[in-house]
Amino acid sequence: MPLPDDLQREIDSLRGPGVPTRRATVPALEEVLYAPVPVLDHGFVRPIDYMGDDAAIVQAARVSYGKGTKKVREDRGLIRYLMRHRHTTPFEMCELKLHCKLPLFVARQWIRHRTASVNEYSGRYSVLDKEFYIPAAEDLGLQSASNRQGRGAAVSAKRAAEVLRLLREDAERSYAHYLSLLGAPEDAGPKPLKDGVPPVEGIARELARMNLNLSYYTQWYWKIDLHNLLHFLSLRLDAHAQKEIRLYAEAIAGLVKRWVPLTWEAFEDYRLGAVTLSRQELAAVREMLAGGTPDLDALGLGKREQEEFRARFERKREGAS
Amino acid sequence: MPLPDDLQREIDSLRGPGVPTRRATVPALEEVLYAPVPVLDHGFVRPIDYMGDDAAIVQAARVSYGKGTKKVREDRGLIRYLMRHRHTTPFEMCELKLHCKLPLFVARQWIRHRTASVNEYSGRYSVLDKEFYIPAAEDLGLQSASNRQGRGAAVSAKRAAEVLRLLREDAERSYAHYLSLLGAPEDAGPKPLKDGVPPVEGIARELARMNLNLSYYTQWYWKIDLHNLLHFLSLRLDAHAQKEIRLYAEAIAGLVKRWVPLTWEAFEDYRLGAVTLSRQELAAVREMLAGGTPDLDALGLGKREQEEFRARFERKREGAS
Amino acid sequence: MPLPDDLQREIDSLRGPGVPTRRATVPALEEVLYAPVPVLDHGFVRPIDYMGDDAAIVQAARVSYGKGTKKVREDRGLIRYLMRHRHTTPFEMCELKLHCKLPLFVARQWIRHRTASVNEYSGRYSVLDKEFYIPAAEDLGLQSASNRQGRGAAVSAKRAAEVLRLLREDAERSYAHYLSLLGAPEDAGPKPLKDGVPPVEGIARELARMNLNLSYYTQWYWKIDLHNLLHFLSLRLDAHAQKEIRLYAEAIAGLVKRWVPLTWEAFEDYRLGAVTLSRQELAAVREMLAGGTPDLDALGLGKREQEEFRARFERKREGAS
Amino acid sequence: MPLPDDLQREIDSLRGPGVPTRRATVPALEEVLYAPVPVLDHGFVRPIDYMGDDAAIVQAARVSYGKGTKKVREDRGLIRYLMRHRHTTPFEMCELKLHCKLPLFVARQWIRHRTASVNEYSGRYSVLDKEFYIPAAEDLGLQSASNRQGRGAAVSAKRAAEVLRLLREDAERSYAHYLSLLGAPEDAGPKPLKDGVPPVEGIARELARMNLNLSYYTQWYWKIDLHNLLHFLSLRLDAHAQKEIRLYAEAIAGLVKRWVPLTWEAFEDYRLGAVTLSRQELAAVREMLAGGTPDLDALGLGKREQEEFRARFERKREGAS
Repeated sequence: MPLPDDLQREIDSLRGPGVPTRRATVPALEEVLYAPVPVLDHGFVRPIDYMGDDAAIVQAARVSYGKGTKKVREDRGLIRYLMRHRHTTPFEMCELKLHCKLPLFVARQWIRHRTASVNEYSGRYSVLDKEFYIPAAEDLGLQSASNRQGRGAAVSAKRAAEVLRLLREDAERSYAHYLSLLGAPEDAGPKPLKDGVPPVEGIARELARMNLNLSYYTQWYWKIDLHNLLHFLSLRLDAHAQKEIRLYAEAIAGLVKRWVPLTWEAFEDYRLGAVTLSRQELAAVREMLAGGTPDLDALGLGKREQEEFRARFERKREGAS
Repeated sequence: MPLPDDLQREIDSLRGPGVPTRRATVPALEEVLYAPVPVLDHGFVRPIDYMGDDAAIVQAARVSYGKGTKKVREDRGLIRYLMRHRHTTPFEMCELKLHCKLPLFVARQWIRHRTASVNEYSGRYSVLDKEFYIPAAEDLGLQSASNRQGRGAAVSAKRAAEVLRLLREDAERSYAHYLSLLGAPEDAGPKPLKDGVPPVEGIARELARMNLNLSYYTQWYWKIDLHNLLHFLSLRLDAHAQKEIRLYAEAIAGLVKRWVPLTWEAFEDYRLGAVTLSRQELAAVREMLAGGTPDLDALGLGKREQEEFRARFERKREGAS
Repeated sequence: MPLPDDLQREIDSLRGPGVPTRRATVPALEEVLYAPVPVLDHGFVRPIDYMGDDAAIVQAARVSYGKGTKKVREDRGLIRYLMRHRHTTPFEMCELKLHCKLPLFVARQWIRHRTASVNEYSGRYSVLDKEFYIPAAEDLGLQSASNRQGRGAAVSAKRAAEVLRLLREDAERSYAHYLSLLGAPEDAGPKPLKDGVPPVEGIARELARMNLNLSYYTQWYWKIDLHNLLHFLSLRLDAHAQKEIRLYAEAIAGLVKRWVPLTWEAFEDYRLGAVTLSRQELAAVREMLAGGTPDLDALGLGKREQEEFRARFERKREGAS
Repeated sequence: MPLPDDLQREIDSLRGPGVPTRRATVPALEEVLYAPVPVLDHGFVRPIDYMGDDAAIVQAARVSYGKGTKKVREDRGLIRYLMRHRHTTPFEMCELKLHCKLPLFVARQWIRHRTASVNEYSGRYSVLDKEFYIPAAEDLGLQSASNRQGRGAAVSAKRAAEVLRLLREDAERSYAHYLSLLGAPEDAGPKPLKDGVPPVEGIARELARMNLNLSYYTQWYWKIDLHNLLHFLSLRLDAHAQKEIRLYAEAIAGLVKRWVPLTWEAFEDYRLGAVTLSRQELAAVREMLAGGTPDLDALGLGKREQEEFRARFERKREGAS
């Protein structure tokens, strides 16, 4: 994914030896600061700035507990305690700012996370670039029958070729007509208006953009605190998240791991790798541990809950017998 | 704008004589409850529920001021005082819930207002309806030269016809291919999958939807408190807001006026009809009132600021001489 | 707990037969609307207004899932599905407004829940009433040695008497001096300034109030959506919450149960009665189910985690053998 | 204001030469990083960390405007444009983290700003220090007659002495009894429990603290973005804010000026020094500029509004004649 020249120059100029700061600083994140992590065919996430580190979380927590934390001598233990007991406010003391390039349909899911700051490229002010997302053939899953919001096995190679051709043709035409609406001949470049008088009457950018489809890329600066970022990641790293946004979440997860490694470890143990048992499931596990065979119907578990429960616990048990 | 049968039936069933409640109730809003206010060619806003009224704002304010408000005997005066001094928290005590149908490009602007609750129709779960926005010919403004984010005079009738044809054709094709991607023949209706086996392999809805363009309608339930709603309205009723979202703001303004008439009046006087003078503009006005002619350059007003200042004050002055 | 006359009159006037509304209405909550639920010695929570019901949650969720929810025919199943999968936004569609009277030290914990609207009695505008919290003797717990933030067994009757006397005397003196600072003789009533000229120079209310201690009652209107209210309750109903705020949470829980019974049932099953197993605890349970004895040290569980794990699972197991 | 030894040591260790960073860095703020700015008799604000600078605001804005901002070449002009037009989101891209020590009655006003992150010292975990606020004699204002929430002229020297003695005695006694409730003899130091067995039964810290009055100091880490910080400052620097919190706002304003000088200048011109004219006031000014004498009663201005209007504009006019 080659970057536009001006962005590449900006990155090069910022990725110098640095200046001195007295702030909490994380060398492992400094190393990759400003550098884009590629996602999908044209997207990226770039860490632009950060505030705080694992120690900043501990520092804030110790203010709360005052002399009461004198005995907890090491940071790792305290961070794990905070994560486990959902004492979430100290994690708000860290911030991450990212520059993201992402398709519109991904942006529409992402923006639902409200506790974040966003500055997005505006199609009212500027002409959008001609960049759209085309999935890889192996990502063209069939509509899942069991999961109303998901995709299943990949379509056949022949069908994939048809689908990709159609997606590409529509995106290309969509953009050509966008330029045309702006008053430029269809083969013109993205800045057709700079000569002042367009060849034909161009309608306002704020109107013309509605002809673009949802595969087009937008970009934004996105800033969020670590607590809300972990919440975002817990939802978007989930197997039920749409694959396209999941890939962005994975790219961000890699940055978080560099930035706050102790927090990330605790997050994996107490959130990502954790499971929640309902009151009924807890009763069932206790009965199984006591040697019994719980009646999941009688306990009130629905059909899907029962399947999940068995997948999680029963096979392990059978495997042992 | 005929409504779908099921929505019309739902509305009819809810718009009965009502049941008794002890809550604060506003007959003028009850009258139009559930009924859609048409916006654009296929959109609407429908009031679904509300909490509080003008008196509820007063009630909350009086808790704050305690015995201190005994002397302010009438609600109107207190509401105007709150609005004028930006004591905003009592206005948070009222809530409005709307059902909105709106084009995607409008939804993308709207969703930037973060202090609200939203449930949007999901293209992962369901097939979108074939409904897209086509502007009226007179709304096809040229890109404004003076205002980078706006539109100017309408294009010629001939150009308008071309533009509308192109927008319509692309939206139609976009939808036909969307259905095709879902595994349906292009001329099929919107629910092609109900027979179980589609004629061709259908890719997942979450992927196919990216072929739709931004003129397609979505819908959501949107709930917001009155303080944040007034902030939304102050931005979206502004002359610089894109006309399409402004029309939604106007439809909502009509509902707010029914709901909390005293608040609406105060909002018009102290917000919508108010102007803010910068430190420099205030100095200039004072100088003018003293009979002088302020040097706007020397005061540091930029070129655009000077234009606006003159438009606001000087002509009136000249008119009087 | 007798209410002030003016509050009692207000309640009586509002608790009439009601007026008709087309909004979602919950008779079980209407029945207790405006009526105070007593908490502690002088506190209360009073339901003032509400928006939505169980059906409103379902209604919003169905907009999201569109045609995709046609098959989920009954509301209870959908609400349980939403609660279980933490699809939290539909629960934001309901609002509850409470009038609360509570000691300042409780208010300081409560206000940390930021996603809510508050109008609090202001000690700048009005003189506070002479009402302070004195715990019951049996609530005077010793500082817990095992739990740094909690209390243990009750102190002896003799010590309790000393403690209560001291708390009461300090609160009484605190208030007498508060009035004195306001310029009133110590035995004056709470409105010493109405004659215009106070007997001695009274300092500003905003200053005098700092002499009151944290046991004094304040009051506020508090409005919150159901999702954030359930989060508040899950934290404040917890055994580790301070008993005084827990009693308020219990009073509110009783109202929520009346208001949205299906949601409350799901909340009890999937949140209040649920447990979360960390990655390591999940591994341990699986090993136990397979007949093994997990090495909790080797799995990395801390001392406290091991204790909790054993309390939760092992005794049950032993009990069965 | 001498700092506790451990805090002084922490500050000294952090205020070294620094480490290299590639992040946006502000030397003028680095210079004072970690150093407390004294406020009131025992309070302070200390800048602990920051993210971004004036250029970061511009950077985020340029992403929004895209190629549309190419012509605005200089940062100052763009920042002023953003401030003037209330394009607030780019200001959210900067964060400031402060360590504050402040009296409880100030903390209760401060915490009402909800869009911020806070970790406060907890009286459940630890014993509070013996530090309380005593106003300077000249700050002991009489209750204002004209402004229900404010204070007027200072009381007499004799009365001031009485007031200060009373405030001090009550605060001293309050703390002595707090220690006594914790099970320590009244003359013990602040850590009476470290020997394990207290001389008398100590009740839980979470209960004992209610005996402290609102003049006691607490402390917290407080993190907020620049947009919300400016909103905080615009309210708390106002002449109607209580003087004690205003002094904190002034201390923070000094830090903001060092940190983002261009933003601060714009904030002074377009917010702090600006005035808002209501629809009616605007009409009145226009009439005056046209040589007329507006009838403020007929325009609907209330008594207080008329006073303010005259103070703002009429005297200036008369002065010139």
